[in-house]
Amino acid sequence: MSKILAINAGSSSLKFQLFNMPSENVITKGLVERIGLKESIFTISVNGEKVTETKDIPNHDIAVSLLLEKLIEFEIINSYKEIDGVGHRVVHGGEEFSDSVILTSEIIKKIENLSDLAPLHNPANLTGIHAFRQILGDVPSVAVFDTAFHQTMPSNSYMYSLPYEYYQNYRIRKYGFHGTSHKYVSQRASEMLGRPIDQLRIISCHLGNGASIAAIEGGKSIDTSMGFTPLAGVTMGTRSGDIDPALIPYIMEKTGKNVEEVLQILNKQSGMLALSGFSSDLRDIEIEADKGNERAKLALEVFASHIHKYIGSYAARMSGVDAIIFTAGIGENSTTVRASVLKGLEFMGVYWDPALNRVRGEEAFVNYPHSPVKVIVIPTNEEVMIARDVIRLTSGSKVY
Amino acid sequence: MSKILAINAGSSSLKFQLFNMPSENVITKGLVERIGLKESIFTISVNGEKVTETKDIPNHDIAVSLLLEKLIEFEIINSYKEIDGVGHRVVHGGEEFSDSVILTSEIIKKIENLSDLAPLHNPANLTGIHAFRQILGDVPSVAVFDTAFHQTMPSNSYMYSLPYEYYQNYRIRKYGFHGTSHKYVSQRASEMLGRPIDQLRIISCHLGNGASIAAIEGGKSIDTSMGFTPLAGVTMGTRSGDIDPALIPYIMEKTGKNVEEVLQILNKQSGMLALSGFSSDLRDIEIEADKGNERAKLALEVFASHIHKYIGSYAARMSGVDAIIFTAGIGENSTTVRASVLKGLEFMGVYWDPALNRVRGEEAFVNYPHSPVKVIVIPTNEEVMIARDVIRLTSGSKVY
Repeated sequence: MSKILAINAGSSSLKFQLFNMPSENVITKGLVERIGLKESIFTISVNGEKVTETKDIPNHDIAVSLLLEKLIEFEIINSYKEIDGVGHRVVHGGEEFSDSVILTSEIIKKIENLSDLAPLHNPANLTGIHAFRQILGDVPSVAVFDTAFHQTMPSNSYMYSLPYEYYQNYRIRKYGFHGTSHKYVSQRASEMLGRPIDQLRIISCHLGNGASIAAIEGGKSIDTSMGFTPLAGVTMGTRSGDIDPALIPYIMEKTGKNVEEVLQILNKQSGMLALSGFSSDLRDIEIEADKGNERAKLALEVFASHIHKYIGSYAARMSGVDAIIFTAGIGENSTTVRASVLKGLEFMGVYWDPALNRVRGEEAFVNYPHSPVKVIVIPTNEEVMIARDVIRLTSGSKVY
Repeated sequence: MSKILAINAGSSSLKFQLFNMPSENVITKGLVERIGLKESIFTISVNGEKVTETKDIPNHDIAVSLLLEKLIEFEIINSYKEIDGVGHRVVHGGEEFSDSVILTSEIIKKIENLSDLAPLHNPANLTGIHAFRQILGDVPSVAVFDTAFHQTMPSNSYMYSLPYEYYQNYRIRKYGFHGTSHKYVSQRASEMLGRPIDQLRIISCHLGNGASIAAIEGGKSIDTSMGFTPLAGVTMGTRSGDIDPALIPYIMEKTGKNVEEVLQILNKQSGMLALSGFSSDLRDIEIEADKGNERAKLALEVFASHIHKYIGSYAARMSGVDAIIFTAGIGENSTTVRASVLKGLEFMGVYWDPALNRVRGEEAFVNYPHSPVKVIVIPTNEEVMIARDVIRLTSGSKVY
């Protein structure tokens, strides 16, 4: 038995889950928020109860020290030495990393070199990595990349039609994100279907505040809707998704904003927030749409229609589809979004049951039994994938 | 019987076709090139022979005068008065024009107001309109817009997920282009199928140096791949098609270019030219791909895959498809592109015959007789649509 921490560090936050492996039981989980700001908030689950503490936590080193102290204080562990491994989510692995990897100084340097591709995320992920290495010393740690699962895409999926030297010199290509989630749900679908993953064509819809669709053939990602960054693809909570690229200079000219300001708008003030005019939260939008708000209805229609069209597109990409998966906040919980997305796909063998589609937040088949294409709701679990990769990569080291 | 001129004026060119209506016989056609440059070239077809003359043609007024003189000189007409109407292609009709329109001073002002949306095209189209009005006086003339056919798109197709005021204040939305072509081939498909257009779901692939795909339901465009400008959608000869919008600031930062320069690259130095590294002309690329050139193969794969995915996407949009149309230079002539696009669509009822697919440049069915989805090659004819609209809109005036 090993105790493995799965860590997701943001610029001012740190999420954690402590697993018993290989049982995959979650011993505890929690969150540090507002790191580096006044009145940081530490939250941890103790025997199923949420415990919250508010105090100034000036940096990630102190957040990690506090977390480990609290694990001892609440008698979750007796000593730091019980932590057998730490797995870190890292957003961007570029073309260097097509799998998770044991963290060494050399590997950390490579991840730093990728910060150019993910200037907001990779540096934040690295603060978490540094803090744990600082405090836990030689406890093995592993990086798990959001992009790694998509490294199997063929060049005709990942190449943009841009000057070739942009790919060679600036690493401009499609990377895709949410890879750990797409990988988890596709493996889980294979288990639920009782069919080997190498015989399946899966379309995975990860629909949260960020949303991406992946075409997964034989267990390998062969195409995905996000691109060089997580801005691309379908419309999202606050992100525009794909737009005519010529709009950027046009918006700059019309509004007098510079290109960074326009990009900020595309990332933070677009998507369903812009369409609805009042919220990026799908639950709010559904409520207003029910009351007859036209802009809220439009936001829902655009969101569902983008996903619906990607499903058609990726079915064509794989010459058909065996299973469609819905996951993440919206995918797991929104009956109405799933219904709008699935409506009218009978021509490609998708027959789904409105009664079964009422499911929320649990694994379930939504298709009629006779449907050639299965439709499955699967709550995602990126944390367990991180813990599994720590075990897989460090077996033979002190973890066992 | 009426004689109608169909005109397509570019910034330094003017294409013309003279029709006998309603028979739709082409009396003559030709082209003025390099208007405003040294050694302009005038080409006209006389009794099936191409006649070319090289001389300086400083502006569109002089080009139009020359054209009309030549029509008399070659005894194609005896007097200007035989021209009963002129139809002009106009690229952008914005939201104002959902159909062709008789040109008046007021309408011309409206078209000028739309130049903001098509700064390269509308002013060029207007030079042609002005030149003919100058010389032919009160002969009725009509504008036929590339965007008009797509004005039937619902808001969930044409709205970008951008701040709503961009739509209200700056007219930012999807317009779509090649509308006259998509309309012509979809009407022709209905005739060839012997089925009323209001019962058909058609996917029209206009594949030339510019390329766009349209979803046409009941004779109405409900979605299309081009966007606010003709840059968007699938990769093209020199245009990138859709890319992650976040790439624009990244390319600016890496190359030190400003946003207009980057846009110029996306329009002129991207697409299959960039992927292949040597040509934007599909015929060149096919030849090199046959010789084993990997970059040429990649260009073909990306182009075909983008179209293939749009077909899946638009089939989903219409809950199925009755006919897929290929038109324009590549669509009418490239057996290999059509084959790559169609491969693997059996899951949605597309069964096509490689032998029939060898057709080039003529109307033909490419599907097996039993195929639920018909696949049709149809040479486009935007000029005849222009001539028809002149007749339709001016009947009752002096044309009849």
